[in-house]
Amino acid sequence: MVHRLTLTALPGIPLVEPGDDLASLTRQALERAGLVLEAGDVIVAAQKVVSKSEGRLVDLTTVTPSARALEIAKQAEKDPRVIEVILGETAQVVRVRPGVVIVEHRLGFVCANAGVDHSNVRGPGSRSGEWVLLLPEDPDRSAAELRRRLRETTGLESLGVLINDSHGRAWRNGTVGIALGAAGFPALMDLRGRPDLFERALQVTQVGLADEIAAAASALMGQADEGRPIVHARGVPYPLREGSAAELLREKSLDLFR
Amino acid sequence: MVHRLTLTALPGIPLVEPGDDLASLTRQALERAGLVLEAGDVIVAAQKVVSKSEGRLVDLTTVTPSARALEIAKQAEKDPRVIEVILGETAQVVRVRPGVVIVEHRLGFVCANAGVDHSNVRGPGSRSGEWVLLLPEDPDRSAAELRRRLRETTGLESLGVLINDSHGRAWRNGTVGIALGAAGFPALMDLRGRPDLFERALQVTQVGLADEIAAAASALMGQADEGRPIVHARGVPYPLREGSAAELLREKSLDLFR
Repeated sequence: MVHRLTLTALPGIPLVEPGDDLASLTRQALERAGLVLEAGDVIVAAQKVVSKSEGRLVDLTTVTPSARALEIAKQAEKDPRVIEVILGETAQVVRVRPGVVIVEHRLGFVCANAGVDHSNVRGPGSRSGEWVLLLPEDPDRSAAELRRRLRETTGLESLGVLINDSHGRAWRNGTVGIALGAAGFPALMDLRGRPDLFERALQVTQVGLADEIAAAASALMGQADEGRPIVHARGVPYPLREGSAAELLREKSLDLFR
Repeated sequence: MVHRLTLTALPGIPLVEPGDDLASLTRQALERAGLVLEAGDVIVAAQKVVSKSEGRLVDLTTVTPSARALEIAKQAEKDPRVIEVILGETAQVVRVRPGVVIVEHRLGFVCANAGVDHSNVRGPGSRSGEWVLLLPEDPDRSAAELRRRLRETTGLESLGVLINDSHGRAWRNGTVGIALGAAGFPALMDLRGRPDLFERALQVTQVGLADEIAAAASALMGQADEGRPIVHARGVPYPLREGSAAELLREKSLDLFR
């Protein structure tokens, strides 16, 4: 048996507006691509379209920065209104340098700017203003909801949904796709106890499988346009199970680099 | 045009021994899979088989730990001989905790155990001893050499080679595949200056594309066996160019988390 993983960027997804139905958009785009969902398939949706469909837009012209936001904005050389929005999504500020604000997001992961995005953002219905986009309120819930809707119409038990985003890394240049939300997918694959070829216990024991598939989808989505925000993946070489992106968050007590 | 990224784990790769010719093994396995290399294709080889083909094996029974190795081994609760081998591959020790040794590898990246691997390792020609496997001496050079050999027989100008490995992350559970070596591949994709949909400059500007493809290949390779150590990738949605994994190393002066 040849193991093959195939990722297809679903064509013709329109610009997403608040209130749009991602499950319908996904179904229509699958049809356009000539794909019929099968057991074990995974849908990866870009954070941006999930956030937009959920209306997670803030108009900066309505934001008044706090004293703390003004101070951090000065250190970071950023728009104090954007910093104010970032702080609203932040559990703990981790590092501030010119051009860089790294925080622990209220959802638990460490990332730049709390995921608040200023590019490729326009207001709902093209309303004027200066808009930024927040992460989904609860990406695992968003993934579970999209999965529920897709299972409803397909009747498939085994179907995974990931929501991906691009994150920087502590020691490496360039962003990579990571799983912000997950449903019906083994986000963290536990290989502990599986013997290796020569019967020694495996040293590498836990694999961030959802992040690996999110990264693959991210490579295919590109960055500069929104034309390919939903990817279909087939051939993940492990059985799917219930799961959530929360599995991927390192406990603070085990974090050596904060 | 539908964007599709297809990764195929090449079947029937035998256990690799020192001196084995990875280019021949790859060609034979491509044939077995019914694949003919095309312009833009990428071959991803697992670090383990590259290291083994290069004979990067050390027999622990021949290793005498230094005083420093003994001290770190005590803190890390690890075999002092393994620590001695790790130190030989290390530029700087970054963190030591029970069960954890994180270093800056002599090649510049931060990783656990300097990539010294104790599982799935046996001696050359099944010689007795307790063997560990080091990373390739120069993974970019190993990638370039494999690429040169594959181009020789195919005549293809545009062909990428990546060598991947599994690394842990500072703040996330589970390992993910990263590019240890690269040749003929845009390891770091620079999107700076590309306008976004609404003519604002992109905030996210550099993508660790080689790491994203390495992660996808890693998901397909699995961990517990060596049966799928070489992956063929087709459909990377960017033109290939010269490049190396060194592009992915963050300069120390920009590292906020060491």
